[in-house]
Amino acid sequence: FKDGLVFEDGSGNWKLQINGRVQADFRRYDPSEWRDDTFSIRRARFGGTFSFLKDFAVRVEGEYANDNTGARSTTALTYGYLDYTRWQAAKLRAGQFKPFFGLERSYSTNFTDFGELSLAGNNGSIFNSTYDRGVMVHGDPATWLNYNAYYVNGTGQNNDDQNDGKDMGARVNANLARLGQIDDAVLHIGASASKGDLGRTSLAQSTEANGVSFFSVTGLDANADRERWGVETALSYGPVKFQAEYINANFQGERGATSYNNDIKAWYADVNWLVTGESWADAYKSGVFGRVRPKQNFDDKHGWGAFELGLRYSQFDASDFRNMLASATANASKAEAWTLGAKWILNPHARIVLNYVQTRFDAPYALTIAGETDDTEKAVLLRAQYDF
Amino acid sequence: FKDGLVFEDGSGNWKLQINGRVQADFRRYDPSEWRDDTFSIRRARFGGTFSFLKDFAVRVEGEYANDNTGARSTTALTYGYLDYTRWQAAKLRAGQFKPFFGLERSYSTNFTDFGELSLAGNNGSIFNSTYDRGVMVHGDPATWLNYNAYYVNGTGQNNDDQNDGKDMGARVNANLARLGQIDDAVLHIGASASKGDLGRTSLAQSTEANGVSFFSVTGLDANADRERWGVETALSYGPVKFQAEYINANFQGERGATSYNNDIKAWYADVNWLVTGESWADAYKSGVFGRVRPKQNFDDKHGWGAFELGLRYSQFDASDFRNMLASATANASKAEAWTLGAKWILNPHARIVLNYVQTRFDAPYALTIAGETDDTEKAVLLRAQYDF
Amino acid sequence: FKDGLVFEDGSGNWKLQINGRVQADFRRYDPSEWRDDTFSIRRARFGGTFSFLKDFAVRVEGEYANDNTGARSTTALTYGYLDYTRWQAAKLRAGQFKPFFGLERSYSTNFTDFGELSLAGNNGSIFNSTYDRGVMVHGDPATWLNYNAYYVNGTGQNNDDQNDGKDMGARVNANLARLGQIDDAVLHIGASASKGDLGRTSLAQSTEANGVSFFSVTGLDANADRERWGVETALSYGPVKFQAEYINANFQGERGATSYNNDIKAWYADVNWLVTGESWADAYKSGVFGRVRPKQNFDDKHGWGAFELGLRYSQFDASDFRNMLASATANASKAEAWTLGAKWILNPHARIVLNYVQTRFDAPYALTIAGETDDTEKAVLLRAQYDF
Repeated sequence: FKDGLVFEDGSGNWKLQINGRVQADFRRYDPSEWRDDTFSIRRARFGGTFSFLKDFAVRVEGEYANDNTGARSTTALTYGYLDYTRWQAAKLRAGQFKPFFGLERSYSTNFTDFGELSLAGNNGSIFNSTYDRGVMVHGDPATWLNYNAYYVNGTGQNNDDQNDGKDMGARVNANLARLGQIDDAVLHIGASASKGDLGRTSLAQSTEANGVSFFSVTGLDANADRERWGVETALSYGPVKFQAEYINANFQGERGATSYNNDIKAWYADVNWLVTGESWADAYKSGVFGRVRPKQNFDDKHGWGAFELGLRYSQFDASDFRNMLASATANASKAEAWTLGAKWILNPHARIVLNYVQTRFDAPYALTIAGETDDTEKAVLLRAQYDF
Repeated sequence: FKDGLVFEDGSGNWKLQINGRVQADFRRYDPSEWRDDTFSIRRARFGGTFSFLKDFAVRVEGEYANDNTGARSTTALTYGYLDYTRWQAAKLRAGQFKPFFGLERSYSTNFTDFGELSLAGNNGSIFNSTYDRGVMVHGDPATWLNYNAYYVNGTGQNNDDQNDGKDMGARVNANLARLGQIDDAVLHIGASASKGDLGRTSLAQSTEANGVSFFSVTGLDANADRERWGVETALSYGPVKFQAEYINANFQGERGATSYNNDIKAWYADVNWLVTGESWADAYKSGVFGRVRPKQNFDDKHGWGAFELGLRYSQFDASDFRNMLASATANASKAEAWTLGAKWILNPHARIVLNYVQTRFDAPYALTIAGETDDTEKAVLLRAQYDF
Repeated sequence: FKDGLVFEDGSGNWKLQINGRVQADFRRYDPSEWRDDTFSIRRARFGGTFSFLKDFAVRVEGEYANDNTGARSTTALTYGYLDYTRWQAAKLRAGQFKPFFGLERSYSTNFTDFGELSLAGNNGSIFNSTYDRGVMVHGDPATWLNYNAYYVNGTGQNNDDQNDGKDMGARVNANLARLGQIDDAVLHIGASASKGDLGRTSLAQSTEANGVSFFSVTGLDANADRERWGVETALSYGPVKFQAEYINANFQGERGATSYNNDIKAWYADVNWLVTGESWADAYKSGVFGRVRPKQNFDDKHGWGAFELGLRYSQFDASDFRNMLASATANASKAEAWTLGAKWILNPHARIVLNYVQTRFDAPYALTIAGETDDTEKAVLLRAQYDF
């Protein structure tokens, strides 16, 4: 096992990788009336990727972590796709996969900067599913250039389509530091766009901390159009990384006899510092940051692993929808969140994440939920994660 | 990895096989009002088989592909069984498995002649589940002779029984070409029969293409009897194979105060030609056709893989139930389907399947569904499949 | 594969264990009106444990055996946890796992003395889930001493918490034979306790044989307190083992305007004899009995495997709840069960289990279910099990 868990035969023609991950969370919320404190399994996955005859790969992965409550089954397919990888510049993928839009959503959930995505990138209104079914072409035409383009159902994970309309989208990004041969740095810029049917009759948004669902619009006609575009950048030098994204989503459709044409605008900016000196450039590949390898693993001989600190600001602005909110007292159309994060990366496969997330609501000012009125949600997330 | 993905220790006493498959479909229907075009995951499976101490084997496999819509969970057990294999002529199996009835249903879904089974073999009225729970004895008393006999709940996949009645059935088949030592040929004949409780209060049937559900009978008393018998043949010489089956299912029971004693008769005949010259006899084993190995795999050196063309006719005749149909306008009691198929077998583990399926309804003549009246459904199925 | 199925690299730094099990049951009940005879998959599991860098381990396992009927999904996460194992005397675990309470519940379900746990240990009223989410510390401070302490949601498998209250509990046990250096014997004693919210509005209990649900109390306020304590012992010398447990659960809360403070008392005692002479002491480790290795495996050369006989008496006394039973005719508040068991352990990974369970109900005397009145349920359980 050179790197994690790969079985190979001598010829290099056959390779099986067994993958798994567990993210064990403890979450604490204030006001406590809005959401119960809980031990939660955020993700528990097991699956395999089989690569054969050099150009073929098939991946199946199951998610076992879903909660009993709600409509979802406790287990679900995440990845179920086929790859044809002969051309590095144009790899083909078919099945159920993650269509890449923006930088933050392209991260593996093993390696996100904070425990949860920002208000701009998390699932809710602008995005409604991490996985979708269809086809994708993606690749690296040059060492500094990466792209993907997809054509999918647009109805999300484990859904066959509910209408004949499909979603299409694309993302292009470049690492100018690589182009300019600047060592130990990443100068990443990128842009994404997509269009398709909304395919749902409601919009909703929860806080980053998976706390209160503060934004809700219901009763929409299902055949609304949704167009999204976004721009992204990440600048790293040695152990310091700055990253920002802006995403705009336009919704056009009818609610009963009234037509609407509304935007949701969201963005975030964050900075992350690997205190122990690891370089972000080493973790960057194909347009995304991945696994950080501590200079020294945590064990009785070498040392203490890597430490990371981070700060993020994110904003969600759906004030176009202010007059369409489902509840006048329990909903807000704007929110801004500060996240303070600390990470202990014990070794490449184990990490402890501690986040404090404070979310302020606006337009209208405060929410009244379960009898408790407040304009701010404070949440603490503590996560232990191993992956292989 | 000699053949796919098997881990063995030196002694031959222990063996683990990890299995997976993904079938990524695109389906297009006409009339488009009857069913939405969709990207679909037809099957996504992951599991393992552990063989130990020569005579023992245990298999667990999960299906992750089910759609969110409908009553089924998106994941489910397919195979969960124990084998005792000391006697080649009488292997014992207990747990959840596929009870073999007829030739087409005995195929692995990796290797079916067309994307979906015929109107005679697919799940619907005559059969209602691929998997069942119980015990089975099966084996090859001679190299040319194969059989199985089973005693199962009869209530299908992931169901404990809902009544004390069980289903029993058997299949016997022979390859006369092997008996007569004719090279490069298969002369397969076989027969199956089963009896048991229906265990359901309704019957339904969709087209081969998983399109419209054209046949529906409801309100039956659950304790009806169902008896099935079928005959099968397959004749192959070199790269050409002809195959046909006839299946008769008799249903006896009550609907309210009225008793009924009705037959459903269904059959198909198909011909398949491996254009690139591979032999069907090489893919035949234990009463069923399996994995085709192209003479040359698709890659940059050797060649283009194997190509196959096929044509199938199938018929479903439930006209005994004509007066019991649930809807006078949206149901038919008879259907016939032509399927035209092309297959590109890139290597033993990867294939692309293209099917055109045209289904004509009768008795009554045309269906009216979602405001659209037609007597024919046309469907295109494009599937990419890798398995290991 | 030295012992089952473990893949290791040479360095000892990385290890992957793939696990699976299938338990295929046939169950027969009398009175037959109370429950249908059925082939059932009791457990079908597949998962992996990855150990890395000596001190870290992560485990994911899926259960695929659940029945379609009822509210549960047919698949579910069992184990999804992280271990930090540097300190043998204080191993840390986080995620979803089995919090150990009592001896019988600490057994792996592969190795229980009988097919199902006793009325004292099975899930129902005193316990409501095998798995829970939270954190645990456990270990062996000495070779003869074992303990665990846990802090969990208390709401069971695949549930995030429904209230801010958590459950805490612990178990301590010792093997005095090890302390006194007595060969070939186990003198095990232990005690457990826990406290927490009930978190449910009803209590129910089925017979050991998973037959009739004889005890039911509904309409409780969810915020009741539940306190449990138990004592356990197991005495084995050579092939004979005697084992007994007593568990007391106190429930305090309100039902509407009435408050209650009731106990459920349950206990069992059993004796098991490995007729072929294997020693129970060899199967004992860390406070629990595990895999029995027959002196000779069942195969054509060596022999016939191991045989075991067992007898168990167990009693469930919820007579404090007698006046709160949901049904005056279909419920009982007391039950006692005799279980007669035979086991054929073919090899360390395969076994056949046959149990006869007779349960007598009391307080009130007989149950009337589905029109059939009886004071006794008789059940036969035949199980075939392989694990790896």
